[in-house]
Amino acid sequence: MTEFDDQAALEPAVEEDAYQLDKRLISGILYTLEAKDRHTLVELLEPLHPADIADIIEQINPYDRRRLVQLYGEEFDGDILSELDDSLREEIIQVLRPDVLAEAVRELESDDIVDLVEDLDEPQQEAILDQLEDADRVAVEQALSFPENTAGRLMQRETVWVPEDWSVGQAIDHLRDARQLPEQFYHVILVDPRMKPVGNVTLGKLMSSKRNVPLSTITEDVFQTIPVTQDEEDVAYAFNQYHLISAPVVDGDERLIGMITIDDAMAVLDEEHEEDILRLAGVSEETSLSDTIFEAAKGRATWLFVNLLTAILASLVIGVFSETIDQMVALAVLMPIVASMGGNAGTQTMTVTVRALATKDLTSQNALRVARRELSVGALNGVFFGFIMALVAGFWFGVPMLAVVIGIAMVFTQIAAALGGIVIPMALDRAGIDPALASGPFVTTVTDVVGFFAFLGLASSILL
Amino acid sequence: MTEFDDQAALEPAVEEDAYQLDKRLISGILYTLEAKDRHTLVELLEPLHPADIADIIEQINPYDRRRLVQLYGEEFDGDILSELDDSLREEIIQVLRPDVLAEAVRELESDDIVDLVEDLDEPQQEAILDQLEDADRVAVEQALSFPENTAGRLMQRETVWVPEDWSVGQAIDHLRDARQLPEQFYHVILVDPRMKPVGNVTLGKLMSSKRNVPLSTITEDVFQTIPVTQDEEDVAYAFNQYHLISAPVVDGDERLIGMITIDDAMAVLDEEHEEDILRLAGVSEETSLSDTIFEAAKGRATWLFVNLLTAILASLVIGVFSETIDQMVALAVLMPIVASMGGNAGTQTMTVTVRALATKDLTSQNALRVARRELSVGALNGVFFGFIMALVAGFWFGVPMLAVVIGIAMVFTQIAAALGGIVIPMALDRAGIDPALASGPFVTTVTDVVGFFAFLGLASSILL
Repeated sequence: MTEFDDQAALEPAVEEDAYQLDKRLISGILYTLEAKDRHTLVELLEPLHPADIADIIEQINPYDRRRLVQLYGEEFDGDILSELDDSLREEIIQVLRPDVLAEAVRELESDDIVDLVEDLDEPQQEAILDQLEDADRVAVEQALSFPENTAGRLMQRETVWVPEDWSVGQAIDHLRDARQLPEQFYHVILVDPRMKPVGNVTLGKLMSSKRNVPLSTITEDVFQTIPVTQDEEDVAYAFNQYHLISAPVVDGDERLIGMITIDDAMAVLDEEHEEDILRLAGVSEETSLSDTIFEAAKGRATWLFVNLLTAILASLVIGVFSETIDQMVALAVLMPIVASMGGNAGTQTMTVTVRALATKDLTSQNALRVARRELSVGALNGVFFGFIMALVAGFWFGVPMLAVVIGIAMVFTQIAAALGGIVIPMALDRAGIDPALASGPFVTTVTDVVGFFAFLGLASSILL
Repeated sequence: MTEFDDQAALEPAVEEDAYQLDKRLISGILYTLEAKDRHTLVELLEPLHPADIADIIEQINPYDRRRLVQLYGEEFDGDILSELDDSLREEIIQVLRPDVLAEAVRELESDDIVDLVEDLDEPQQEAILDQLEDADRVAVEQALSFPENTAGRLMQRETVWVPEDWSVGQAIDHLRDARQLPEQFYHVILVDPRMKPVGNVTLGKLMSSKRNVPLSTITEDVFQTIPVTQDEEDVAYAFNQYHLISAPVVDGDERLIGMITIDDAMAVLDEEHEEDILRLAGVSEETSLSDTIFEAAKGRATWLFVNLLTAILASLVIGVFSETIDQMVALAVLMPIVASMGGNAGTQTMTVTVRALATKDLTSQNALRVARRELSVGALNGVFFGFIMALVAGFWFGVPMLAVVIGIAMVFTQIAAALGGIVIPMALDRAGIDPALASGPFVTTVTDVVGFFAFLGLASSILL
């Protein structure tokens, strides 16, 4: 079935580092900064996509960054600002000449301006809003009046809609007569007399249908409207789950007030994932490669501090058994193995649970069954690794009962890890706390405490 | 600026669990299975999106799953199969009646069939391909001839293209005359006489431009073609980076052979993220909530086994210092704290590095600067937490030199964690190994060994 070995020879060689910025290009740009050669700089940056220019700005050091923005001058456009990492925007905005900034912002669509200003300080926000024409300013301020991270912040206000009882011909004539259409639109939205969206017609269907066909007969099978206060994470979920390309946004009376397109939903999905990965590792979300050392250290310190407290707690458990350890130092040598295996198994179960909650695959419907399954998995791996470790410990220290103790302790710890890994994230989720953010410290506390207690406790009662 | 408190009152209450499957609905479905009430089952499932039906099948237990598929019978369509988790597809396909399966598959577009069959065993794959009409079968087999996880597997073969020198009017007439257009298309691709794609015109632009306008004057600013052998991860990156909605796929001679749309790219992005999150936690990617206990245990055991080896390695280090511990049991109590803090800091840096590599933000251009920054962050947090821990240990055990030892050991370990967290993923990436998959065990080995060695080594030379 797979004959790609022959085929591959006919295909273009795809470089390993597709879409990676060319190293020589960056060197060239740094050289133009050194030489203050504005002409060449513009020539080098002109053909690049704004997202790539933003990436270059993020990758060079703060000193070069400042020089680049100043030398590039009026060529610096709004799209570059839009594409920049949140953490760098304030810095760049402060360096931009006010007239360049004003011009840059005026080019942007209102939803991009919202995205740009929502994280800025009040004075910077005001400075940018002041540059806008009245209509844009009102649009942006209205968007900002919706809660952060909701559909209202994400949507564009410009939509293309027609009455639900129109025909294909009427819609085509309307579009061809329209003075200005949105930059990006893929559907014509059908609305009822109360402005409630009732269906989507793709432009492709519109173009290939006869003029007298009623629009209501060629709508898409899948149609979802998005409440304006819906969390953007759920918006991204809906786009991914139902393969939406664009969806109308409605207010509390179900009236059409905007539209979200899949590219914005994809960006949200990407951000949410990034946030989840970093939170699971205990890195605060603000951290990016362009943060300063102090910011980055602070972003990591919170979780490290929590971890310190849980580690001390685990040490207190060890402290209880210090006499036992004093009598048999092999316990001190082996105990980190029990804790480490428990910590890893707990992290595994916790990560599976956090993901399943995010993808809505874990619900109260199947929670009990999933928990039962995780406990069985923990028990199975506990027995398996407990047996291996018993053999290792037995041969290493030549004390048969030590082998029994570590084997049993491993089983206990693996089961506790499975239990903690599923119950803790679910409880946090139920309490309205992001399980990705807070589960880690609790789960490791459980596995450490159970691990040390089981191992040292068993040792003190069986061995000594 | 944000006045959402007032506003919120006017908006619809968005339920916490948007898009979560209704618990009563699932109970109702389970009841129809019990009662063998096919009519009601069809009535309940009919209004649902295939993706939601697939989710229900994933959430119920294997016994009910089988009963549902059998009772639902011929209503079971191809889209449900497409939406099912890979790990369940084989199971469901085996339960489906051959005629239902044949009918289900025939409904699907060729790219969905490829996605469906690529992970199946040879006999199941053959059984499905045999059901297809010749043209579809050839299309699917050609797609399968491209390497796994490349653009060739992802693309649809149906494209809409016109010669680059056509006008708007010619293109519109062509589309209106076309016998069959693809289900989903958003652009008309302009090609040169050698069939090389040279630009995209959105349908919206096409509809709103005058008939005599040359198409070449209204193409999109951003235009990317995708080589057919490009890795799907890079395809997803390109869509996200350049905000593409659809992109033509070209062969080795740069000729148009297919098209990828953003919804497929979004699905890939989602899968890649899932894979990264699970791999970082040491869970093999096959694991899903519907795996059996034994499969799940196996999926976790690989990493647990690697972890066991590294934990034993760390224990050997402790073993070297068992005499030291014998003389001062406080060391055994405190040493897990040093290792735990190192492990966590290492995981933080490693995760940031893995993410930055995935988003192409970390390159050879800025690697040194980023590494320097991480080392500084490690040193800063090392000094901070070393100081705190020195105080804690000093008060706890009343031995001033023990406080000094643990403080210095913490600094060493935090710096080693930063170094390991950045160097190991970068080296694996350079060697062509997925850093998300393999970094974890190496990083923890480094932090454990350095942590125990620094703490116990310093203790044995300073304290005793």
